[in-house]
Amino acid sequence: MKAKALVLEKKRELSLREIELPGQLGPDDVRVRIHTVGICGSDVHYYTHGQIGPFVVREPMVLGHEASGVVTDVGRNVSHLHVGERVCMEPGIPDPTSRAAKLGVYNVDPSVRFWATPPIHGCLTPEVVHPAAFTFALPDSVSFAEGAMIEPFAIGMQAVVKARMQPGDVCVVTGAGPIGLMVALAALAGGASEVLVSDLVEEKLAIAARYNGITPVNVSRESLREAVDRRCGHDWGADVVFEASGSPKVYDDVLACARPAGAIVLVGMPVEPVTFDIVSAQAKELRIETVFRYANVYDRAIDLIASGKVDLNPLITETFDFEQSIDAFERAASARPNDVKLQITLDT
Amino acid sequence: MKAKALVLEKKRELSLREIELPGQLGPDDVRVRIHTVGICGSDVHYYTHGQIGPFVVREPMVLGHEASGVVTDVGRNVSHLHVGERVCMEPGIPDPTSRAAKLGVYNVDPSVRFWATPPIHGCLTPEVVHPAAFTFALPDSVSFAEGAMIEPFAIGMQAVVKARMQPGDVCVVTGAGPIGLMVALAALAGGASEVLVSDLVEEKLAIAARYNGITPVNVSRESLREAVDRRCGHDWGADVVFEASGSPKVYDDVLACARPAGAIVLVGMPVEPVTFDIVSAQAKELRIETVFRYANVYDRAIDLIASGKVDLNPLITETFDFEQSIDAFERAASARPNDVKLQITLDT
Amino acid sequence: MKAKALVLEKKRELSLREIELPGQLGPDDVRVRIHTVGICGSDVHYYTHGQIGPFVVREPMVLGHEASGVVTDVGRNVSHLHVGERVCMEPGIPDPTSRAAKLGVYNVDPSVRFWATPPIHGCLTPEVVHPAAFTFALPDSVSFAEGAMIEPFAIGMQAVVKARMQPGDVCVVTGAGPIGLMVALAALAGGASEVLVSDLVEEKLAIAARYNGITPVNVSRESLREAVDRRCGHDWGADVVFEASGSPKVYDDVLACARPAGAIVLVGMPVEPVTFDIVSAQAKELRIETVFRYANVYDRAIDLIASGKVDLNPLITETFDFEQSIDAFERAASARPNDVKLQITLDT
Amino acid sequence: MKAKALVLEKKRELSLREIELPGQLGPDDVRVRIHTVGICGSDVHYYTHGQIGPFVVREPMVLGHEASGVVTDVGRNVSHLHVGERVCMEPGIPDPTSRAAKLGVYNVDPSVRFWATPPIHGCLTPEVVHPAAFTFALPDSVSFAEGAMIEPFAIGMQAVVKARMQPGDVCVVTGAGPIGLMVALAALAGGASEVLVSDLVEEKLAIAARYNGITPVNVSRESLREAVDRRCGHDWGADVVFEASGSPKVYDDVLACARPAGAIVLVGMPVEPVTFDIVSAQAKELRIETVFRYANVYDRAIDLIASGKVDLNPLITETFDFEQSIDAFERAASARPNDVKLQITLDT
Repeated sequence: MKAKALVLEKKRELSLREIELPGQLGPDDVRVRIHTVGICGSDVHYYTHGQIGPFVVREPMVLGHEASGVVTDVGRNVSHLHVGERVCMEPGIPDPTSRAAKLGVYNVDPSVRFWATPPIHGCLTPEVVHPAAFTFALPDSVSFAEGAMIEPFAIGMQAVVKARMQPGDVCVVTGAGPIGLMVALAALAGGASEVLVSDLVEEKLAIAARYNGITPVNVSRESLREAVDRRCGHDWGADVVFEASGSPKVYDDVLACARPAGAIVLVGMPVEPVTFDIVSAQAKELRIETVFRYANVYDRAIDLIASGKVDLNPLITETFDFEQSIDAFERAASARPNDVKLQITLDT
Repeated sequence: MKAKALVLEKKRELSLREIELPGQLGPDDVRVRIHTVGICGSDVHYYTHGQIGPFVVREPMVLGHEASGVVTDVGRNVSHLHVGERVCMEPGIPDPTSRAAKLGVYNVDPSVRFWATPPIHGCLTPEVVHPAAFTFALPDSVSFAEGAMIEPFAIGMQAVVKARMQPGDVCVVTGAGPIGLMVALAALAGGASEVLVSDLVEEKLAIAARYNGITPVNVSRESLREAVDRRCGHDWGADVVFEASGSPKVYDDVLACARPAGAIVLVGMPVEPVTFDIVSAQAKELRIETVFRYANVYDRAIDLIASGKVDLNPLITETFDFEQSIDAFERAASARPNDVKLQITLDT
Repeated sequence: MKAKALVLEKKRELSLREIELPGQLGPDDVRVRIHTVGICGSDVHYYTHGQIGPFVVREPMVLGHEASGVVTDVGRNVSHLHVGERVCMEPGIPDPTSRAAKLGVYNVDPSVRFWATPPIHGCLTPEVVHPAAFTFALPDSVSFAEGAMIEPFAIGMQAVVKARMQPGDVCVVTGAGPIGLMVALAALAGGASEVLVSDLVEEKLAIAARYNGITPVNVSRESLREAVDRRCGHDWGADVVFEASGSPKVYDDVLACARPAGAIVLVGMPVEPVTFDIVSAQAKELRIETVFRYANVYDRAIDLIASGKVDLNPLITETFDFEQSIDAFERAASARPNDVKLQITLDT
Repeated sequence: MKAKALVLEKKRELSLREIELPGQLGPDDVRVRIHTVGICGSDVHYYTHGQIGPFVVREPMVLGHEASGVVTDVGRNVSHLHVGERVCMEPGIPDPTSRAAKLGVYNVDPSVRFWATPPIHGCLTPEVVHPAAFTFALPDSVSFAEGAMIEPFAIGMQAVVKARMQPGDVCVVTGAGPIGLMVALAALAGGASEVLVSDLVEEKLAIAARYNGITPVNVSRESLREAVDRRCGHDWGADVVFEASGSPKVYDDVLACARPAGAIVLVGMPVEPVTFDIVSAQAKELRIETVFRYANVYDRAIDLIASGKVDLNPLITETFDFEQSIDAFERAASARPNDVKLQITLDT
């Protein structure tokens, strides 16, 4: 099937052009007319660097993996979705009979195929075919724009699930970028009484501070450790510290801010191995969880947004038409401090 | 030490009179001037029945175990509390070196001493001595009335901790009495996207329905199972079902409403053994948790109330002076459907 | 495909005859020549009663679900198994994209198809086609007879996984039938320092007592509660109590024998709802787990047998030829106290 | 109270001399005549380096914290121990009412007092006073020598508890020193079907290899990663990897050997911060647990030894008289590859 798409031809070269895409509807699939696609930091990174770790763009690849849309056709085995239904899609498709998938951790199935991760095409194109099992109906109260935010919010949800939070936990999130905000909002929805969010950039902290329950900490001006001590006492600390900056410099703070027997959840992905003080972690017997995408959280993420407990709308900074896609990527690549999420609409 | 107190002389006989109480301040204790005491269903049950299960009132006993107040003296080892500090108290005092206490489950230490559980005196008296380790400072934003609500809310917190909830869980609470409401609010604070609360009494459901996120289900008019099916789908169910009615009749509903691999948390205490369909629980491989009081939740309960995430004020129906204590108990014993929590103030 | 099989025509009527069976090899399937099949209590129950709970034999159905054999053909997507490989098969086949399966609890997928559960045919026939994902290679050190024991042992494994045992746990198993023995052996392999196994039948207890670490308790002669008290102290109890008798009479003992904050695992399936003392469970804040078949334990069950840590050979009482299948079922139905597992060999 | 003791006067200077020690028996204490004391790597490190991390020997300090003995007196509140009872002692004494202790993690109470950790005296002296709550009776089947091995074995137990093992897990332990061996034996007792133990020193591996279920891997000759791949498959790995070498060089191996969604348990304490590849851990969504001493494992460690499931006797290399204590420490400091545990007996 030929279709127009936003194609990353190679590092630093985008085109909006026709490309051959798989279009056959299998018995367990749905066909979806794409409505909204958010731009993720990883999309931008493929554009600016041509690779992320071992994943290298060697062939032209369609970008985009944060999408909502409308079902236009369903395979013959599909019963829980119908034509006309508004949906969002989980972008990673595992082998459902793999060892990891049988264990319920399909996100770490080595054979998973993930939108816009080379060599798999993404969804910045007017129509996709997707497994019904990874396609989720949106309630009326969830807009297409919110539907396209489920994907990044799912990462926050996964981090909170891994944290095994208890109601009333005091949390820290290092990094107030889009992922840090998603983690902070998921932590508040998941039981935190307060989340201290740290960053160096005042504009980012100002956006975080609009939410009840988030306390911003500008670490260019004050010590995160001292802010946590004031909140939690000198012999104690935060119940959970989420690392969401990807900076190799925060790990001493992350370790220092957790309480004895607390948890650290590593969400940010530093580009190089970091220097890590094992003995500091042991002295408090910390549990350290790591996060890789998400599994089994889309339905509950949608429920939280539909219920009004989580409001992602303030994080959608600007919306572009499909025809302006390349401009949208240029804007995203310029990394303005006030920009949280840029989205592209295809179905207008 | 002689002091005035609300004394349950024996079943159905209360007096407000002087009684000899332990008053010695040990090195790890604080002395607290009591400000507010809530009336609990168990206080009323001792008054009306003279016993709860194996606990029988054989000697005059001071009632009351839901209390807030002000520190008036501290033992020589106490450093985290000071005179003049506003506090609330956890009413069960374990042997801190017992096997259960060392495991962190001091609530099930067989040697625990609990206020107003025979033969231990309660706190409906102007002054008590209490271990500092079980006395918690109240932030300025938490009133004495709210401080005296921490105890019943702690039961809801314990239920939610046991449930091991995940953010976005859909929950059911059977029973809209005070404990059911506490469980529902703790579940919302702990991550629930929605809580269906069932009862037969419309007035109780109306109070529950004032809270965002709570859906009332009047089981005199509609089937709880069908309400859950509408919300969760016919092949699925609620992630967690909390039983908070104490009725022996709800267990089939409780089992029917939980999803495959879901959890049931038993908070309500039926007076007799119940009929329980083991195979129904097995067919969905349900996990069943039980709750006995609470451990390690007071600090986080206070944090949630201080943060504004949980508002217990709508549940305080009326406040009585200490001199009206017996009237307050008569009112509580009359079980008006609109009454959630009655409180007594001593420090006016 | 027509094949000879042991067919349950209807309640109380077995034949060894030709029957039409599905025989098409899909791309993810393997074809297996059956070598050994164990007779399970559920097979016998279908024979003697024609139904188990809601599962009623309405059409002739091939019996048997505990099988080992040799791969004779593999589908085109199958890479981890090859022709000639010795294998055993997990008899329940879920929809791998169902909600339960995605969560890792495919055993509670409502659409699971399970051998010899009406209307699905079992494996007492010379050849079956089975999904490769639910077919497991047997190491050389595991015999076909042991391979056909993996299925019942998997139930014990599931019970132990649910128990979340810690090394050194003292356990109780009520019921010394085949399932009770499987649970006891899995508990020992899973970390128990000692397992007290109770029953009324001396012959069954004598078989259990052959294993190091198992202490038999004949409850026709001594109190289980007292035996546990002697071992664990009067204020304490067993860390985990596994109910494996299916008797409605054991629940008071089960509750009495668990320690504060201990666990109860319900494996036995009583035919009627039981009388259950909720308050006794709450007073110790017990966690109650239920077991339905198993998920994700076959590979680890095989590893434990291959390593020599678990020896199931003493439990294989007698082996019959395929031609003697009906005699074997008559023997099983007679329930001799010394019989643990009867097996049938097809590939001689 | 004046008593003879093995005193570390300062770095590199030991004397066996009289010293003033606390000797008052409190109401919750027992007095114990010391029988056997094991020499731990930390004792030797204080001797050779005068400090471990922030803990510096500034005053003469009695060494030793792995002890067994006989009760010679009991405080007035002590009921579960009696004079003449054979016991071993947990060497860390927390504040039982601290926040950590109330949570059940008394090992991370910042105020814990631990034998032979400056400035707290150890137990290489004929008599000690110890809280009864941290003193454990030894069954007849556990010798004094084994009783003095409970302390190092408890570290292995804690590591296994943290791992949350499931029966049949395949484990890796990096490092075949005393702690690595303890971890490997605890893992086998806790459910492992096989433990691969790696080291560079053949003598140490030879000792490990005497145990059924342990597979030695000499990483000077073969790749640990390849050994794990052979055992677990190329797309998979070990369920749990325990780091017990303290070497900063093993972390890449540790990360590479764990399966997707597996666990890493960090027991060894590297003297400097290490280089750690966060993204490698994230790509498999590994859980990383850390271990600090132990809590609530002594009773279950004793049970496992009493039951015969764990045999520590092959690890006791040689026993010295109290008078030879300094020689024993010189021998320990010489770090012979065949030496696992050296012990000193005081009560002969």
